[in-house]
Amino acid sequence: MKIELISVGSELVCGHIRDLNAPLVAAKLTELGVDVVNHTITGDDSKDLKFSLKAGSERADLIIITGGLGPTQDDITRETVADFCNLKLVSDKKSIDHVKSLVGNIHVQKYVNCLKQTEIPEGSTVIHNATGTAQGFLVNFSQTNIICLPGVPSEMKQMLEDWVIPYIVRESEETKRRHTRVVNTFGMSESLLDEKIQRIIKPDKSLSYSTLVNNGIVSIRTTLSNTDKIKADSILDNIEEEICRELGEFVFSKREEALEETVSDIFKENSLTLAVAESCTGGLVSDLLTNVQGSSSFLLGGIVSYSNKIKENLLNVSEELINEVGVISAEVAKAMASGVRERIQADIGLAVTGIAGPSGVEDGADKGKPVGLVYVATAINDDLEFKEYRFFGSRVDIKKRAANAALNTLRLSLSGKTAKQ
Amino acid sequence: MKIELISVGSELVCGHIRDLNAPLVAAKLTELGVDVVNHTITGDDSKDLKFSLKAGSERADLIIITGGLGPTQDDITRETVADFCNLKLVSDKKSIDHVKSLVGNIHVQKYVNCLKQTEIPEGSTVIHNATGTAQGFLVNFSQTNIICLPGVPSEMKQMLEDWVIPYIVRESEETKRRHTRVVNTFGMSESLLDEKIQRIIKPDKSLSYSTLVNNGIVSIRTTLSNTDKIKADSILDNIEEEICRELGEFVFSKREEALEETVSDIFKENSLTLAVAESCTGGLVSDLLTNVQGSSSFLLGGIVSYSNKIKENLLNVSEELINEVGVISAEVAKAMASGVRERIQADIGLAVTGIAGPSGVEDGADKGKPVGLVYVATAINDDLEFKEYRFFGSRVDIKKRAANAALNTLRLSLSGKTAKQ
Repeated sequence: MKIELISVGSELVCGHIRDLNAPLVAAKLTELGVDVVNHTITGDDSKDLKFSLKAGSERADLIIITGGLGPTQDDITRETVADFCNLKLVSDKKSIDHVKSLVGNIHVQKYVNCLKQTEIPEGSTVIHNATGTAQGFLVNFSQTNIICLPGVPSEMKQMLEDWVIPYIVRESEETKRRHTRVVNTFGMSESLLDEKIQRIIKPDKSLSYSTLVNNGIVSIRTTLSNTDKIKADSILDNIEEEICRELGEFVFSKREEALEETVSDIFKENSLTLAVAESCTGGLVSDLLTNVQGSSSFLLGGIVSYSNKIKENLLNVSEELINEVGVISAEVAKAMASGVRERIQADIGLAVTGIAGPSGVEDGADKGKPVGLVYVATAINDDLEFKEYRFFGSRVDIKKRAANAALNTLRLSLSGKTAKQ
Repeated sequence: MKIELISVGSELVCGHIRDLNAPLVAAKLTELGVDVVNHTITGDDSKDLKFSLKAGSERADLIIITGGLGPTQDDITRETVADFCNLKLVSDKKSIDHVKSLVGNIHVQKYVNCLKQTEIPEGSTVIHNATGTAQGFLVNFSQTNIICLPGVPSEMKQMLEDWVIPYIVRESEETKRRHTRVVNTFGMSESLLDEKIQRIIKPDKSLSYSTLVNNGIVSIRTTLSNTDKIKADSILDNIEEEICRELGEFVFSKREEALEETVSDIFKENSLTLAVAESCTGGLVSDLLTNVQGSSSFLLGGIVSYSNKIKENLLNVSEELINEVGVISAEVAKAMASGVRERIQADIGLAVTGIAGPSGVEDGADKGKPVGLVYVATAINDDLEFKEYRFFGSRVDIKKRAANAALNTLRLSLSGKTAKQ
């Protein structure tokens, strides 16, 4: 079953608000195992919507439209779909009773306006909207079925779960026959990684994979269709194992986690505590870690040492060292990691120093050192380690990549140490 | 000029990640005054992309494609567009030099993989990507021009601003006749604000407005079409003035800035320095401030005091006070603001303490105090002020709103103080 999504609304097409419905519907349906082949966002314009309906009906088995079922004159979905299918609109008796029960007794004028929302194309099936006045419907056009749902996300979501998903499961066989695995990696470029994966996964009609990059994290998503769960698990287990063997320590999660979640798990499992010193990332590493529920159990705190004075006073980095090697250096990163660990009395210290952008990213940024140069250091007991990175992109990009690199460096230092124990 | 947007990526079409590019492009172009008629999201599939290109070329003057210009085998935009237009792909010499300068000297293998990204359809115009390896291009097909940009949002945005927008302005007449103003506010609910705006702006065929909410910030966007600049400026100046009079200190920017930019400007203009102590926001306030170029001139540093020990040792908050009133309190917020100001020797101290989510957001989180309760305090000289907030939403939502509330509280405290001087 191929599904196409259409979101209707001029406020969406001109970018003033973001469409939340199509990504939600797509994620739910993909999880079910059906193919979402296309989304279209179109304005409150009959001609544009008909154009999209025509294009969709040429290749999809099911079109799901969200939006444009409201009571005002710019809500055109109902009329346009009826017109496209060459059907009259008729009032649905049960829907009238429902709308009456929702608004009838309070606002007579509102009730009258809402009556438009009880009309459906002749012969179509009503999709009941328990919490709102905009009723949905399913109508057939040639080889394609068309489902119309309201644009209010909470109402749409409820109707999707109560009616649309059970309908799709009933109608399609393949939903129970698609299986997915995700492996998250950090540190290897997408192109190099893709070369290695090509040696492991030979895509065919039922097996496929894709890679996705997000601030240095590369996710590999493997999908197997037309297979029962037992067989799929065995095939996907093998692929996952081969990927992990081939990529080694570049793999940080097989559960679609973010780096901060993986790091949090390591700290919690080993009952360790952490202190963070940040220069160019400006607090982002701490921010990411505190997005994880329960991070207070290991993250004692952090120091954002934007000025050299703070590096000296709070992190105990000596002025001589800064003068000698510059703040953007492996030596200062190590001194910061060691300093924050002692100052905050944590088991482990993590430090980042670097240049996120031009013009005084941190005062005393070493002249001549390039934008994107970042040093990460860890202090585990008296053991100091560091890594040097070069990132490119905007100021915010470099910060995000540096923060992920810091978390990954911490993960690697810890996995070595905790494994040794 | 009618414009159609196509976003390419299987991860978008199946809802795993949300398309950030099309809404951003749509908003920018609508502001310019051109008509965005449709967005399409399609997977990494040549057949689907060609289908969308065909549909788009039937009704749009310009198609802008984002995504699918990466170096791996599932990046199919380059080949598909060339194929659709019946053109060969050829290497662009300048792009090769650029890619070489970005990655060539570090990773030879990566460089070789990236060479694919320097290919463009024969006869097309290169759109230079200064920060990344994926070069864009403009190619002509029958009555329609097609622009291809990379999917990485920061790279796409830069190329949009540097190349695409100037191109569209050159090519289209109507862009010079639409005018927009944006006023950003914080602290008033969207519905209340909308009521007030309705009294000021009476929308008609050429005048319209919209409001948009984002982590507590409500933006009011007023658009005037079919008018020359002089007349438009006079009308929009009046409207802007009335909005600012009506909303008073709720307005923080008339230039579409973020709160951290407004705050940075105040600090720079008044040559003041800042130190930040964060508990529930976990470093996010510092992170936002360091996203602003030149923030090192006023942000000396910050302390993320997740544990009570750090509040005591580094911020000088007394154990007795914490035991007496709890860490989530106005008193502790004020003590933190004063403590961080002294410790970091800054002119001004800013502090946030609160509960972002269930289960140990910070250790010692007061029992019985509700999730979403946040206190912000400022220390300006010996003058301590605080504000209490209640937010709802997810852990990350609460953190983001609390960080914006902290920046806004700082702005208000400062505007009072700096105005007095």
